[in-house]
Amino acid sequence: MTKREREQLLELATRRKTSRIFLKTPINLNDVYYCLKVAIQAPSGANKQPWRFLLIDEPAEKDKIRSACEQQEKRFHEKVKRNLKRWFTAKGIDYKKPFLSEAPFLLAVFSDQRMPYATESTWLSIGYLLLALEEKSISSLTYTPSYAQEVKKVFEAPKEYKLEAILPIGLSNDRKPKEKRRPLKHSLYRNSWGAH
Amino acid sequence: MTKREREQLLELATRRKTSRIFLKTPINLNDVYYCLKVAIQAPSGANKQPWRFLLIDEPAEKDKIRSACEQQEKRFHEKVKRNLKRWFTAKGIDYKKPFLSEAPFLLAVFSDQRMPYATESTWLSIGYLLLALEEKSISSLTYTPSYAQEVKKVFEAPKEYKLEAILPIGLSNDRKPKEKRRPLKHSLYRNSWGAH
Repeated sequence: MTKREREQLLELATRRKTSRIFLKTPINLNDVYYCLKVAIQAPSGANKQPWRFLLIDEPAEKDKIRSACEQQEKRFHEKVKRNLKRWFTAKGIDYKKPFLSEAPFLLAVFSDQRMPYATESTWLSIGYLLLALEEKSISSLTYTPSYAQEVKKVFEAPKEYKLEAILPIGLSNDRKPKEKRRPLKHSLYRNSWGAH
Repeated sequence: MTKREREQLLELATRRKTSRIFLKTPINLNDVYYCLKVAIQAPSGANKQPWRFLLIDEPAEKDKIRSACEQQEKRFHEKVKRNLKRWFTAKGIDYKKPFLSEAPFLLAVFSDQRMPYATESTWLSIGYLLLALEEKSISSLTYTPSYAQEVKKVFEAPKEYKLEAILPIGLSNDRKPKEKRRPLKHSLYRNSWGAH
């Protein structure tokens, strides 16, 4: 293998950025399946594969989900503390979630809380998923609804399943550049805490 | 881009398997840095990048960690219920964790619990990390110590940081095949819970 082929992941991971604005343009369902096939190859606690993916493309269903989310986000934004409110304002984030009706697909991700490390394993698989989406030039947002257990009711999922995230997926119309990452040395220590 | 280039992630994700037995052979530190550079490109709650990675290669330090883990694993295995005990026996898993002293590197992963979705974001970044390791043909295990908050003391990390996992990383000497994954349809529903 050439060096170029062996360092594609850094290119993919660096290029992948969060999108909050989506084109309504449809995307290929088989590409979405491809990405989910990647996701379910992730390891999980005792290999229990606790993730469940609910893929939604019916417009009426998406509208219901958006409305359930916005109802809870309104509650959240009314209560939010001043510092966080300032951050939201700077980012242009409020209770409205148009991406939930505009993106061609929503992917609601659940974890079976009866399984060991269900949440951890499911988020690890979301990591796999995001890189596969990027490989297919599909954009996404790992939206974590406020009061997720209230929002969950709209899906009529069994009580053992926790709603972890709702990912709008599709083609991006978000011109914002990727949020900056700190240099590696900020997050990495050698042999003892705080040492470099 | 050719089709082959655009579907490398499924190859990587499918090939990547958990290893519990490692060669003592050193691996290239720059390869490990490469993988961590991939990991820190992951998205995180409010882009707070709550992950901290502690990379350990000093043998004395690895021995201390192994001993701290095995002490807690003993407690855990003494209390474990019959069903789980049977599963552990079938997998050849007991309280002994030789991989913690044998793998050339241990990577202890922490999350800053003051940050939103710290655990979720950190596990998403572990997903990025595992695929990058596989790209470099480096094997790993996402070992989640029993009584992690007890084990954490060995690292002398501040109280706000949760120990999420300790990953031995190196070259595999584990001949076991990858654990099977269920077909995608088991984990995927369309438009409503349980529907295909």
